[in-house]
Amino acid sequence: MSIIVQKYGGTSVETIDKINSIANLIIERKKSGFDIVTVVSAMGKTTNNLIEMTKKISENPSERELDMILSTGEQITSALLVMSLKEKGQDAIALTGFQAGITTDEKHTKSTILDINIKNIRKQLSEGKIIIVAGFQGISHNGDITTLGRGGSDTTAVALAAKLDCPCEIYTDVEGIYGVDPRIYPNAKKLDYISYDEMIEMSSLGANVIATRAIEIGCKYHVPIYIALSTGKHKGTYIKEYDKSMESKVITGLTVSDSDLMVTINNVPYRIGGISNIFSKLSERDINIDMISQTAPIGGYVNISFTAPKDSKKLISNIIDELKITMKEIRADIEENITKISVVGLGMRTQSGVAAKIFEIFATNNIEFKQVTTSEIRISYTIDTKDKDKAIIKIANEFKL
Amino acid sequence: MSIIVQKYGGTSVETIDKINSIANLIIERKKSGFDIVTVVSAMGKTTNNLIEMTKKISENPSERELDMILSTGEQITSALLVMSLKEKGQDAIALTGFQAGITTDEKHTKSTILDINIKNIRKQLSEGKIIIVAGFQGISHNGDITTLGRGGSDTTAVALAAKLDCPCEIYTDVEGIYGVDPRIYPNAKKLDYISYDEMIEMSSLGANVIATRAIEIGCKYHVPIYIALSTGKHKGTYIKEYDKSMESKVITGLTVSDSDLMVTINNVPYRIGGISNIFSKLSERDINIDMISQTAPIGGYVNISFTAPKDSKKLISNIIDELKITMKEIRADIEENITKISVVGLGMRTQSGVAAKIFEIFATNNIEFKQVTTSEIRISYTIDTKDKDKAIIKIANEFKL
Repeated sequence: MSIIVQKYGGTSVETIDKINSIANLIIERKKSGFDIVTVVSAMGKTTNNLIEMTKKISENPSERELDMILSTGEQITSALLVMSLKEKGQDAIALTGFQAGITTDEKHTKSTILDINIKNIRKQLSEGKIIIVAGFQGISHNGDITTLGRGGSDTTAVALAAKLDCPCEIYTDVEGIYGVDPRIYPNAKKLDYISYDEMIEMSSLGANVIATRAIEIGCKYHVPIYIALSTGKHKGTYIKEYDKSMESKVITGLTVSDSDLMVTINNVPYRIGGISNIFSKLSERDINIDMISQTAPIGGYVNISFTAPKDSKKLISNIIDELKITMKEIRADIEENITKISVVGLGMRTQSGVAAKIFEIFATNNIEFKQVTTSEIRISYTIDTKDKDKAIIKIANEFKL
Repeated sequence: MSIIVQKYGGTSVETIDKINSIANLIIERKKSGFDIVTVVSAMGKTTNNLIEMTKKISENPSERELDMILSTGEQITSALLVMSLKEKGQDAIALTGFQAGITTDEKHTKSTILDINIKNIRKQLSEGKIIIVAGFQGISHNGDITTLGRGGSDTTAVALAAKLDCPCEIYTDVEGIYGVDPRIYPNAKKLDYISYDEMIEMSSLGANVIATRAIEIGCKYHVPIYIALSTGKHKGTYIKEYDKSMESKVITGLTVSDSDLMVTINNVPYRIGGISNIFSKLSERDINIDMISQTAPIGGYVNISFTAPKDSKKLISNIIDELKITMKEIRADIEENITKISVVGLGMRTQSGVAAKIFEIFATNNIEFKQVTTSEIRISYTIDTKDKDKAIIKIANEFKL
């Protein structure tokens, strides 16, 4: 019998009623002729509540013990779901990460799966049971409980599907992947398909439907991933390798982020290592900078802009003050009202002119862009936040997103 | 260095503040020159709350999965206590039942410890760590999480002490073992010592300070058990083998129980197996009967009395109705206002006259007793509940409890 791995996230299992509903869906799916392995997250806000509790003891709690605590959330959901399945007459078994054979490295709170021994899962499936696996967790070689970090249950599900050589279904609280987030562009179209590469770019740009790491595993091991509403009533989106059956689009998606600010430092002396001085100070304070642009040097001086998370504003101000001690001539400015807009599409590999088309949209609509950076399948712009809605509508219309 | 196993119960760890206080006590104890292994229960009412949650899904939830859920309570406490110890600068490690090497049989929700592999505990102790073990749980041979039932953390602690060949300290919310529960007899004296045999009798009679099973393990493996308040500020009680240093007392303790009712069935026909018919029906319905008394047969008929838990009243009424179909002549009565008073003491083995002394107390004080049963080191009476306080005071005074 074909196997299917499913994953239900925290909002899908946040109450006993929802757990009972999902048990019904799983039984239906089993009856349609599949062996089922379902990965579950902790109920609702359980993980955050557990973290809050540990913060009352220590600002930096022991990570090994934090993993022991956090892993209980998924362990409880998996057991409750099995109780519900059995109450409905369906044999089932709950497995912790350890019992599911998931071994990880020792990096507590952000471990990586090293291997999955699927012997136990195969045995339980052969006995006709539905298997419910506690997501987000594993065990290290010395027997410590580990967790996989944010989005860990997605990773558990896709890794299990890779090992069982079967498709993976991620059930969540959105209907699938949209070209543009429907909360910011209500006319956005749901995609039937998206390639792994496009989804990785969109996910790393902030489309938080599925963890980037899970897509990377799916890509590496050729696992077809299906994302849909946990009610199972609407058609979702397949993430898979690009093939010709997929509609040929230049741009697949557009992502928007308001979480960055833009720093511009003008009049940086080129000769005395002024630039490297700036970036090494940013790196020392762990400030995660993203888009960097720089003008060509004029008279020994350059102008530099970069984006960074808004919550690092104070740290950056301090760094600028420090820089002014040795480089009195610099002039710095921090702009907070900026928005980063990125377009992603495999079509950009072969079709040029996307950047030009967007420049044209900006010009005809009086949208000033401050920075532009490009990679093989994406282009990102920073613009003034006041122009955000106009830019989204014009680009989405132009590329039929 | 000498090892000490400690156990802290649910009320001792019910808040983060209490966990922090206990961390201080453990560190003090370690500094006084001992290697410490501490067993903890789930915080406060956690276990009951988890059971409530499962009841919303199923009246009889899958026991394997119930164990997966219940075990998380102790797992969380152990990790929080380690976080607190580390925050105070003391190296420590939390171990689940599985990580502590505790293997049990497969009887979910009431498992028995089969063995403890103490290799990991020895290793961690040799590295100077305090070890916090999640009580109440273990792992079966096929890798399932199991729990040990009510009082399971006591059992974990005493079994660990047996295996590590060291004393066991049970910290709880009472100051130690009293001859009579101080809530019902305020003048009761705390005992400095009590023998395993006496404590097993008292515990099975309802003195719920420590699980009977834990004392039995202590008795079997000669583990000295010390019971005291979790603040560590008052002298508690040692449970150990009887030796001559222990004060010579005829009666060590008195226990009182109001949780039973008494059933009397008169005119039971002796010849047609009437008696066995009654007790087999009680056994079929899992009614736990305790004190049984029977008169000698007169004219082919006997009168029988027995005690049973008050919550089985309805079941017993039904059984009596059934019995009347085949034995029309019986007359039955259920008395709910009865109290069971038991006296326990090793001295009874050698000193006769305890029963006579108590009969005398009852006679001179107008206390009517309905039943009496005896074992080697205990005598139990059922009396009318209205006479309870008088009986307790008179017996406690007479035997200086």
